[in-house]
Amino acid sequence: MRIFIAGIDGYLGWPLANHLASRGHVVGGADLFLRRTWVAEMGSDSVIPILSMADRRRVFAEHHGQPLAFFEGDLCDYDFIERAFREFQPDAIVHLGEVPSAPYSMIDAHHAVFTQTNNVVSTLNVLFAMRAVCPDAHLVKLGTMGEYGTPNISIPEGFFEIEYRGRRDTLPFPRQAGSWYHWSKVHDSNNVMFACRLWGLRSTDIMQGIVFGTSIDETKHDARLATRFDIDQCFGTVVNRFCAQAAIEHSLTLFGAGHQRRGFLPLRDSMRCLALALENPAARGEYRVFNQFADVHDITELAQLVQQTARGLGLRVDVENFENPRKEKEEHYYEPDHQKLFDLGYRPTHDVAAELQVIFADLLRHRDRIEAKRNILIPDIRWDGTRRKSGSLAESGR
Amino acid sequence: MRIFIAGIDGYLGWPLANHLASRGHVVGGADLFLRRTWVAEMGSDSVIPILSMADRRRVFAEHHGQPLAFFEGDLCDYDFIERAFREFQPDAIVHLGEVPSAPYSMIDAHHAVFTQTNNVVSTLNVLFAMRAVCPDAHLVKLGTMGEYGTPNISIPEGFFEIEYRGRRDTLPFPRQAGSWYHWSKVHDSNNVMFACRLWGLRSTDIMQGIVFGTSIDETKHDARLATRFDIDQCFGTVVNRFCAQAAIEHSLTLFGAGHQRRGFLPLRDSMRCLALALENPAARGEYRVFNQFADVHDITELAQLVQQTARGLGLRVDVENFENPRKEKEEHYYEPDHQKLFDLGYRPTHDVAAELQVIFADLLRHRDRIEAKRNILIPDIRWDGTRRKSGSLAESGR
Repeated sequence: MRIFIAGIDGYLGWPLANHLASRGHVVGGADLFLRRTWVAEMGSDSVIPILSMADRRRVFAEHHGQPLAFFEGDLCDYDFIERAFREFQPDAIVHLGEVPSAPYSMIDAHHAVFTQTNNVVSTLNVLFAMRAVCPDAHLVKLGTMGEYGTPNISIPEGFFEIEYRGRRDTLPFPRQAGSWYHWSKVHDSNNVMFACRLWGLRSTDIMQGIVFGTSIDETKHDARLATRFDIDQCFGTVVNRFCAQAAIEHSLTLFGAGHQRRGFLPLRDSMRCLALALENPAARGEYRVFNQFADVHDITELAQLVQQTARGLGLRVDVENFENPRKEKEEHYYEPDHQKLFDLGYRPTHDVAAELQVIFADLLRHRDRIEAKRNILIPDIRWDGTRRKSGSLAESGR
Repeated sequence: MRIFIAGIDGYLGWPLANHLASRGHVVGGADLFLRRTWVAEMGSDSVIPILSMADRRRVFAEHHGQPLAFFEGDLCDYDFIERAFREFQPDAIVHLGEVPSAPYSMIDAHHAVFTQTNNVVSTLNVLFAMRAVCPDAHLVKLGTMGEYGTPNISIPEGFFEIEYRGRRDTLPFPRQAGSWYHWSKVHDSNNVMFACRLWGLRSTDIMQGIVFGTSIDETKHDARLATRFDIDQCFGTVVNRFCAQAAIEHSLTLFGAGHQRRGFLPLRDSMRCLALALENPAARGEYRVFNQFADVHDITELAQLVQQTARGLGLRVDVENFENPRKEKEEHYYEPDHQKLFDLGYRPTHDVAAELQVIFADLLRHRDRIEAKRNILIPDIRWDGTRRKSGSLAESGR
């Protein structure tokens, strides 16, 4: 299968290119390296060193015996994406080429507008270019479990059948996102759903949980294949940030009471799930939604697991509750379905402790690079629009 | 009350300025005159002559004994809208400054992207500028009944309480819009709802039905106060287009089977409802949704009413079914609530026939201007992305 990855230079995009090539697919992709720019804007850098795209392509060709077709350009430029599709002729497209950060979107009006515009326009352009060039291709679009928010009822996969005032219908499940970023993904989901209905495109919309991990089987033996690993408040995800904090014996920064419940999955599982979606495409005209995560965890429980693992490695680590910079429920009901990927053969890794061991092994080699960013580990972007570092709430959890 | 109208030069904006001034409010507003540009792009023009904004402001001051504060600029420019709010210090903002056309958004990728970007960014900027300048002001945001689509269950006003797998919650009602334009309004609704939750802003989101009419009491006695009246496929609404077609004895262009059901209201009722929303503001932090229309009608029924009225005036008019350029259900269940405005005192005009008499009186004075646009009365923008004039389906309805 010829698979085009929009956002191929990113945390998910790069290992996915390697994973799919290892499975025998022909891989190409596009990027504008904005993720590198945004992380630099946050005063940070990938703490695991990564190569330039030119070098990545050389190593990729060496490992997989196939060249990597690469298109440098902006997905918000319609002509660029149409040209890339015409040249590559994809059977499937994975759209990872979006701003992936809630806090980044909450900085100010400019960042909110940029996040929503960039994400909505890139997705519209991908949809229009598919219609023009490859209307039978399958779009795998990265959304987020955060689109649903935390309703007081179970969360189905995208749609639910309900009875209301004595009549029945199957409807899109209501979304209640919690940041301008998360809403941009809702806008995308709505647009992708409409394009499938309108033009008969086929798409899988991935409501992904929070990913953690440094490497996958196909990249772990060669440091030159490493994907980026971010630890700043905007582009580092929560478990990755906990591990980086633990690696330099910084307190683990729980937000508020710390009993937010979320779906999580290791990076290897994310790759496995995306491959399953690609290798079992949606039907023509079908818009399907997969809730993609291994297990639901309470954030405090994960912090304690990271703490335990770190202590086992001789690190002195505290778990500390900080003022929550976000506006979110800190205790809530959370019961999302995640059956469809299981039906396609997904078997979760489940062993979070083993995954944490791998992460620590990778991170401890780069302790100096984490130490150099110690000053950015406490969040200061607040949902009320101000910018102020969160203070410690109490001595709880120590 | 000091009321700021974004989009004050438009079909609704201009009569609203006059209606609110007559009710004793201090009115100001912003516009970039894009509506005039878009209608020209469609090869058309307002068939009822309208003044320039400079002349409108002179006549407004003469009629109402107050100057009209006017800000020319782009709502997509955050600094512009923040400056305007700082200078005007609004108690309420009516946001009508968006692309208001489904077919326009369906022309191609460029028009889809422009419509969604323009609408989403202008609304985000209004929200951020309110937070910065006037966080206690009330935002009345124009959405559309088209956000809901045509589900097989009743449509509540914005939210519904449901039971699902034995648990209950009150959730946003799922949206199923039918054009990139209608989805842009859904994106807006989601963003406005979030801003109210996030920052405690107050807002009324108006799901408006299809408006028809040429004038309101406050403008009908002076032709210099007239609002625009569009008849092209993008910016002319269905009943207005029927009346213009009838005025020059052109067939009334029903789309497909013609049994689409929609909520409708006369222009005077729209003004009355918006004033009621403004004069009974939402509470701090409240996001409320009003379904704003007088009655639900079958489109064929309205075409026949226009035909009857025209025949009574000696005009020879046929109703003709054309290929539907849209992708929509032509027979469907439709039962939307519209109680909240009634609770505030709205009493619909109901007398569509009387309203049609007024429209014909106004239009027949400008028959030559409609005749000059005869060639644009059949739609050619199709939902499948092609551009081809709809043909007549049969002799039905004649």
